[in-house]
Amino acid sequence: PVNGDRLVARLKALGQVGALPEGGVCRLALTPEDGAGRDLVVRWMRDQKLQVTIDPIGNIFATRKGTQDGPSVMIGSHIDTVATGGIYDGNLGVLAGLEVLQALDDAGIATVQPVTVAAFTNEEGARFQPDMLGSLVHVGDLPLQEALDTISIDGTRLGDDLADIGYAGTAPLGGIKAAAYLEYHIEQGPVLEAEGIDIGVVEGVQGISWTEITLSGRASHAGATPMRLRRDAGLAAARIAHGVADIAKSIGGDMVGTVGSLRLRPNLVNVVAEMAQMTVDLRHPQEKVLAEAEARLAALVARVAEEEHVSFTRRRLARFEPVAFDGELVGRVEKTAKSLGLSTRRMFSGAGHDAQMLARTCPAAMVFVPSIAGLSHNTAEYTAPDDIANGLAVLGTLALDLAGR
Amino acid sequence: PVNGDRLVARLKALGQVGALPEGGVCRLALTPEDGAGRDLVVRWMRDQKLQVTIDPIGNIFATRKGTQDGPSVMIGSHIDTVATGGIYDGNLGVLAGLEVLQALDDAGIATVQPVTVAAFTNEEGARFQPDMLGSLVHVGDLPLQEALDTISIDGTRLGDDLADIGYAGTAPLGGIKAAAYLEYHIEQGPVLEAEGIDIGVVEGVQGISWTEITLSGRASHAGATPMRLRRDAGLAAARIAHGVADIAKSIGGDMVGTVGSLRLRPNLVNVVAEMAQMTVDLRHPQEKVLAEAEARLAALVARVAEEEHVSFTRRRLARFEPVAFDGELVGRVEKTAKSLGLSTRRMFSGAGHDAQMLARTCPAAMVFVPSIAGLSHNTAEYTAPDDIANGLAVLGTLALDLAGR
Ligand SMILES: NC(=O)NCCC(=O)O
Ligand SMILES: NC(=O)NCCC(=O)O
Repeated sequence: PVNGDRLVARLKALGQVGALPEGGVCRLALTPEDGAGRDLVVRWMRDQKLQVTIDPIGNIFATRKGTQDGPSVMIGSHIDTVATGGIYDGNLGVLAGLEVLQALDDAGIATVQPVTVAAFTNEEGARFQPDMLGSLVHVGDLPLQEALDTISIDGTRLGDDLADIGYAGTAPLGGIKAAAYLEYHIEQGPVLEAEGIDIGVVEGVQGISWTEITLSGRASHAGATPMRLRRDAGLAAARIAHGVADIAKSIGGDMVGTVGSLRLRPNLVNVVAEMAQMTVDLRHPQEKVLAEAEARLAALVARVAEEEHVSFTRRRLARFEPVAFDGELVGRVEKTAKSLGLSTRRMFSGAGHDAQMLARTCPAAMVFVPSIAGLSHNTAEYTAPDDIANGLAVLGTLALDLAGR
Repeated sequence: PVNGDRLVARLKALGQVGALPEGGVCRLALTPEDGAGRDLVVRWMRDQKLQVTIDPIGNIFATRKGTQDGPSVMIGSHIDTVATGGIYDGNLGVLAGLEVLQALDDAGIATVQPVTVAAFTNEEGARFQPDMLGSLVHVGDLPLQEALDTISIDGTRLGDDLADIGYAGTAPLGGIKAAAYLEYHIEQGPVLEAEGIDIGVVEGVQGISWTEITLSGRASHAGATPMRLRRDAGLAAARIAHGVADIAKSIGGDMVGTVGSLRLRPNLVNVVAEMAQMTVDLRHPQEKVLAEAEARLAALVARVAEEEHVSFTRRRLARFEPVAFDGELVGRVEKTAKSLGLSTRRMFSGAGHDAQMLARTCPAAMVFVPSIAGLSHNTAEYTAPDDIANGLAVLGTLALDLAGR
C-alpha cells in the first residue's frame, strides 16, 4: 500500500531546498545547498526510525532491520543535482525507497532481509568528476583518498567540502552489503512518453567517456593580428566543439557527443584567447562504437591544434564501459510491472546511474518512468504523479518480494 | 632634449601597478588597479607642476601653459589595459607626453600655445564597451549619462566604479580645446619589425564592429538527449565562432574576425547548454568590406540558429567607421621622422585609438614604433628602448613645432 501522493509531497518539499527562481533546483554536490538537502532527508530517515550510517565519502544509508541478519535489499540513488536541475532526477529513487519503508511500517510488515535506502555522493558529476563518484568508492573501485582529493569546478577539494557540510562520516566503507540493488529513476529521455509506455525496464547503461581538453595558444590583439599569425585557443576550441557534434551525427544511431563546458582566457572582446578549457562528453551503448568516437575525437583535436598552432593537454574525467544489468533481476522488474497491469519496454539508459556501479558487486536493475518531453538537467523536468505512482508500485512490490515476508 | 631612459623608467614603474606574476599588467578600466595607476600618473603630473583637471567621465588632462592662451597642442592616449596587457599599450603615449613637457622644463623652453597631456578613460573597451569611451564622450559623440550607465563585464555600473576610485571629476566636458592631437603608440602588429622600419606614419584607423550575440536553447541531459532533439546553445556558439574565422579568411586581405569572449550556461560537462553569450570583433580598413563581413555574420547567425533550433538576440557593442587622419598633420609626422634620420612607412592602424575620436574635432595623427613579434594584448608585449627613444624624438620635435617657441 505505497502512497504516491506522499512521495510527490516529499519530492516537492526537497525541491524547495536550493529552489531556483525560474523553477527547478540547484544542489550541486557538497555545496551548502546539498548539505541542507541531506539534512532534510536524514531527518526523514530518523523520523522513520531507520538506522542511519554515513561513510567517509558521505554516502548515506538508512536501514530497516529484517527478521534475519545478512545483506540488505538496497534501494538507492542520489540527491545532488546539476545547476539547472529538476526535482525528480535522483531524488525520486531515494524518496521512493523511504516511501516503500514507510508503507511497510504502516502495514506492519516485517521483511526477512533488511532493506536499506542509499543516497550516494556526487552522482551527477557536474561539480566533481567522475560522476557516480560515491557509489564507485562504495564498491571499492575508486580509492577513498583519491576521491577526497578531487578538485571541484570551483577549485575546492572534495574532502574539505564534505567536512564543511558535516557529511564526512565514519561508518566503514562498503560496510553495508547488498544482496540486490534497485534504482527507480525518471527516464531523462523521450522514448517512454513518445511510445506511451508506463515502465522502462532498464537492461543496462551506455558507455560514458568524459575528457577535459586544455588548449594553449597566444594572447594577441584582435584588431592588429592578421589571421595567419594567430594562435587562437578559442577558435581551436570552437572548431573542436563543432567537430564533436559532427562526429556524433556521422556515427549516427544512439551516438551522442556534447561540449557542455567551455571557458576562454582572458575572455575579452578584443583579445585573441590564449587559453581554452573544454569538456567533451561522448556516449554509446556499445564499447566498440564509443572507442571509435574517442579515436575520432583524438584525431580531431590533434588536427585542429596543428592547424591553429596551439598546443593541448587532455585529462580523462570519467570513463565507464557500457554495463548490462543482471538478466534475472531485469526479468523480475518486467514481470512485476506486467503483474501490476503496466505496459513495459526494455531499454538502455542514456544517463549514468549508481546502479551501474552497484552492478559490479550484486545483481542490480532499474525502473524508469516517463519524462515529459524527455527533459532532464533542465528546470522544467517533469513526471506526472500517476507515472510516479506506477514506478513506486513496481519498486515496492519487487523490493518486498526480494526481501521476503 | 627628450630622455628615452627616463621614459622607459616611468613605463616600468607604472607597469608595477597591477603587475601580473607572469609579467605584464592587468589594469582593467575603473578597477582599483586602474585607480592606483591613475594616482601614480597624477602624482607625476603634479610633481611637474602641470595643471591637472579631471572631467566627469574620468578623463585626465595635465596642461603646461603657453605664452598665449588658446587651444592646446594635445598629446594623449590611455593607461587602462586589458587583462593580459603589456606595459606599453597606451601608457607609452601618456608618459611620453609627460616626458616631452619635462624636457621643455629642463631646457627652459616656453611654448606659444599650451601643451596638454591627456589620459582618456576606458580606451581598451575590454571591461566596458565601446572602446575609446572616454575620448568619445570628450568629443561629444556619446552622451555622458549613457556612458556613466554602461555596465561592465563584471556587472558593475561605470559611474559607480568611477566614483569608487575617486575619478568622477568636475571639470567641464570638452573644456580643454585641442588645436591638434598627437598620439604616440606601439604598433601592436608585426609590420614595422618585419620590414625593419623605425617609425610608422599612421594614415588612419580601420573600421571596428563589435557585436554581442546571445543564443537561447534548452538545457537537457548530455547522455539521454538524442542529437536531433537538441537545442544546443553551446554548439550554435561554437559554429558561429568557427564561421567568423571562415568569413575573415574567405574575405582575406586585411580582414580580421575574432570571438574573444564566450560563456555558456550552466557550463557543466553533462548539460547541453541552455544559453551562450559571445562577442564578435570584425575589422577592416574599408567600410564597404567591413559592412560585407557584418552582413555575412548576420546571415551566419540566422542560419546556425535555425539549424540548431535556438533563438538569438544581438547587441551592438561598438561600431566605428574607418578613419583617415588629417593629411597635412600626417605629412608633418613623416617629415619630422625623416628629418631625424629615421626610416618611415605609412600604414593603417589595426587597433582602435583615442586619436580616431579626437580626429572628429581637430587635426590628429599618430606615431607608431615596432612591437616585437607584433605582440600586444599579451603580457610579453615589448618594444626596445631605442625604438621608444625614436618615437619620443618624433613626438617631442613635432609637438614643439606645433606649439611654437
Ligand atoms: N542520472 C543522471 O543524470 N546522472 C548524471 C550522470 C550523467 O549521466 O551524466
Ligand atoms: N590600442 C588598443 O589596444 N586599443 C584597444 C581597442 C581595440 O582596438 O580593441
